[in-house]
Amino acid sequence: MYGAGDVRVEKLPDPTIQAPTDAVVRVVRACVCGSDLHPYHSMPASEQGRTMGHEFVGVVEEIGSEVANLKRGDFVIAPFAWFDNTCEFCRDGLTTSCLHGGFFSETQAEAVRVPQADGTLVKAPVGEDSALLPSLLTLSDVLITGHHAAATAGVNPRTSVTVVGDGAVGLLAVMAAKRLGAEQIILMGRHQARTDLGREFGATDVVAERGDEGIAKVLELTGGHGTHTVLECVGHMPAYEQSVGVVRAGGVISRVGVPQYEEAPVGFGSLFGRNITLTGGPGAQRKYVEELLPDVLEGRIEPGRVFDRTVGLDETPEGYRAMDQREALKVLVRP
Amino acid sequence: MYGAGDVRVEKLPDPTIQAPTDAVVRVVRACVCGSDLHPYHSMPASEQGRTMGHEFVGVVEEIGSEVANLKRGDFVIAPFAWFDNTCEFCRDGLTTSCLHGGFFSETQAEAVRVPQADGTLVKAPVGEDSALLPSLLTLSDVLITGHHAAATAGVNPRTSVTVVGDGAVGLLAVMAAKRLGAEQIILMGRHQARTDLGREFGATDVVAERGDEGIAKVLELTGGHGTHTVLECVGHMPAYEQSVGVVRAGGVISRVGVPQYEEAPVGFGSLFGRNITLTGGPGAQRKYVEELLPDVLEGRIEPGRVFDRTVGLDETPEGYRAMDQREALKVLVRP
Repeated sequence: MYGAGDVRVEKLPDPTIQAPTDAVVRVVRACVCGSDLHPYHSMPASEQGRTMGHEFVGVVEEIGSEVANLKRGDFVIAPFAWFDNTCEFCRDGLTTSCLHGGFFSETQAEAVRVPQADGTLVKAPVGEDSALLPSLLTLSDVLITGHHAAATAGVNPRTSVTVVGDGAVGLLAVMAAKRLGAEQIILMGRHQARTDLGREFGATDVVAERGDEGIAKVLELTGGHGTHTVLECVGHMPAYEQSVGVVRAGGVISRVGVPQYEEAPVGFGSLFGRNITLTGGPGAQRKYVEELLPDVLEGRIEPGRVFDRTVGLDETPEGYRAMDQREALKVLVRP
Repeated sequence: MYGAGDVRVEKLPDPTIQAPTDAVVRVVRACVCGSDLHPYHSMPASEQGRTMGHEFVGVVEEIGSEVANLKRGDFVIAPFAWFDNTCEFCRDGLTTSCLHGGFFSETQAEAVRVPQADGTLVKAPVGEDSALLPSLLTLSDVLITGHHAAATAGVNPRTSVTVVGDGAVGLLAVMAAKRLGAEQIILMGRHQARTDLGREFGATDVVAERGDEGIAKVLELTGGHGTHTVLECVGHMPAYEQSVGVVRAGGVISRVGVPQYEEAPVGFGSLFGRNITLTGGPGAQRKYVEELLPDVLEGRIEPGRVFDRTVGLDETPEGYRAMDQREALKVLVRP
């Protein structure tokens, strides 16, 4: 990406092993993320540009001398961060804060160097032609991110849920909330094809209105009190404000949409007076991949349904355009 | 209070039963709260003024026709809010969000009308001359507020704790964290008489420095990572910023100091990127009084030690002055 709206496909040197804990993985499927659209809207023009993408599944091509648990030919899922899975933060499950970790930003490509390969990559017993590839790819980001929202909010059979946003993460937050047992799941979104999919994933109500009108609608659906949990899957200030408006006293707002703001209302009138908890963050946690993988492999959930367009690597710019124009919900990239 | 710095003692009509669920309680001990100092600093001059105070213990003088669990002569503790203890929020323990509740603001007085008396008042088996009165009075606010900070932060034997603020709430947050089993409790405060008391209450380290220097000191004490929980017991923006600076990735900031700001940093660089949870709020929960009362009655904790001055009701203005000038940590008012 060389600036807002300016995505180019270029030839770069092949990635190579640089540290003994590295692997090189050939990308079988990558995709474009809703968060990639933030720089697509706002990145200043730049002469050197930046590589893009943080989601992929692929096949191990090469391993460094200290990689013990992987071998050439393994099919692997990479969460959108890398981590050693041994440091004190990883041991607590918070792999996004690994002391030797970082975030991918170069996976819309034919191959990727993966640091801390043993820690990062999760093997899956499938072939490159598996029909499960789209669903497995959601374990790289959108499903584990939606699950992170639901899990950090403490969703369970006794909690009502509002999901703010009908992008891929929002829809999979619905799926995650349903999977954790929530009985009332209100999806706020105004694109009917998407909210229809949301209903199939488990949404019990859809609120298309936004702002005060949307808040009033959710309150109406919840006896005037709002929901115990709100999963904020957008990242813009209106979504934050909506979340504050629909959360029940004593409830939790869990954010997984990358905030496009730094300051927000958190004082007596917004969070404090009603004992609202604000939580969330990047959810590329290895434990989530391991927890959700069996459900995908055994077909209990089908998160790959969020992909509604596939492009070749050369067509990636068109994939950005289609997602940006909301012609596509989520674009799969097939190198 | 008629404006900043302007506290007057005046004769008002005696409170009377107005609803059948009311009680009238004669105040045996009241006190001045750190949060009373906020209007003491900033209240615009007003001709009609406002009544003050939200903490008291006392003796029931009169009850309404529907009050079932109290009788004239009962010694009672009032948390700083009233509530019916039967609505759906009360059943969840969140009595500060009672559908029929409110907050006291008139207890620096000889007597108080208590709405929802059955729900609100907790009986204690002591006489008016009990040596435990100061400690029982802390169950009206400062101890339960400190406990709320620790409880909502999830303090337990495996969590390290920073307490921001060496006021009465901060010192009792130290006591509460210790009571919940925390092994490392870092108290940030610069008034040595207070932090010395904090050490007696369980603080293992004291950091007198503020701002970046204070943050650096806490990081030094915690292997560079900060503490799992931060109990913010002040309410001003520098205390919030300090909390963000000393909290560990994946950790919790629990605020009980009433925020004197509405907007605060919550974006990628402050909370989101490191998965920090922000929680807390008003902690006048009946369950805390019931949980902590036995420890006070049986002398296992002595929270009343935060009171270091006693004034008569007529001297209340002097009590405000002394707390504001930090000549007194917390002032007890004896009508």
